[in-house]
Amino acid sequence: MSTAKKHPKAPTPPSSKLAATDHPVHDLIARRFSPRAFANKPIDDATLRSIFEAARWAPSAFNAQPWSFIVARREDETAFEKASSMLMDGNKRWATEAAALVLVMAQTHDPETGRNYSHGRHDVGLATGFLLLQALDHDVYAHPMAGIHRDKIAEAYGIPEHFEPITALALGYLGEPADLPDDLEERERAPRSRRPQDDFVHMGEW
Amino acid sequence: MSTAKKHPKAPTPPSSKLAATDHPVHDLIARRFSPRAFANKPIDDATLRSIFEAARWAPSAFNAQPWSFIVARREDETAFEKASSMLMDGNKRWATEAAALVLVMAQTHDPETGRNYSHGRHDVGLATGFLLLQALDHDVYAHPMAGIHRDKIAEAYGIPEHFEPITALALGYLGEPADLPDDLEERERAPRSRRPQDDFVHMGEW
Repeated sequence: MSTAKKHPKAPTPPSSKLAATDHPVHDLIARRFSPRAFANKPIDDATLRSIFEAARWAPSAFNAQPWSFIVARREDETAFEKASSMLMDGNKRWATEAAALVLVMAQTHDPETGRNYSHGRHDVGLATGFLLLQALDHDVYAHPMAGIHRDKIAEAYGIPEHFEPITALALGYLGEPADLPDDLEERERAPRSRRPQDDFVHMGEW
Repeated sequence: MSTAKKHPKAPTPPSSKLAATDHPVHDLIARRFSPRAFANKPIDDATLRSIFEAARWAPSAFNAQPWSFIVARREDETAFEKASSMLMDGNKRWATEAAALVLVMAQTHDPETGRNYSHGRHDVGLATGFLLLQALDHDVYAHPMAGIHRDKIAEAYGIPEHFEPITALALGYLGEPADLPDDLEERERAPRSRRPQDDFVHMGEW
């Protein structure tokens, strides 16, 4: 059973963005990409909750669940402006058109025992993977961004010292590539590329 | 379109393993869990390739694709025994019944430029998230393990110094919980638990 609600009038992704796979993969994985063109359409609360619920049920080392998210919806102008100011300029150009921005934090240690969460970043990445695919099942695209001002986030939001900002996500329904500045439109239409499996799947020995 | 081939005779997961979600999530996410009981049934090559293809198409910072996998199939006794010896004892008890073991590495830096891959672990986690859900679409369950001998892996496999071992995965079709030792059978039937969203989803401010 899929939780997707279809939006038949939504723009279709550029065909260059469908993964040119060497082996078949699930539709959610094949059509996922990181867009820069977003529609001016909010994400309702039930959809947002479903998206974070997917992250919630990800596995993590010792079930530590080391993830934390700050969600800024476009409708909340103060929150959205604040979150936007945490993005590096290259991302600010397009990500401020998204329906929501999400700041993603990973727990680094247990403040009581001092125990190191050495799998924190890994597990937050894994949960983000679940989040991305769940979003897409609602036709919501997520664009993860490494280009953020981490120190500024930690200070501006008073992030506890046992968490570190890792990424931000732009979330939204797909927009029209033609509405982007020319250089970004070109990137929005460029084919996706990946190294072949032979480069990173080693059978038996490295 | 789903890539799943259904295995109607396969054991069904204990109902306690279906995520008790507060909000609806995609079926692949709701029924994913980390089993210890695996069937004595190999994973064919097409299925394995599809599983790694899903990881291949994950997003990564600057499209660096910092993941690498060593795959040991049960049919290859030498490779499987070697991979098994990289697991900590608690995992060895059950994971050596899996159809395949996978060692997961993250790139730490670019050996030519020295550039730090600060998102390596995160991005490998994200790719692993895609891999887990793709596996499940083939009814293959993956159990990620933090309990591995990292230094031993690096040495035994001659991992290049710009990669670090992160996790291992046990992959296989579902087996019968009743075939496990009593203490593991109990864990195999125990309900899954997660903190509520209010603990980790912050609206607007931390």
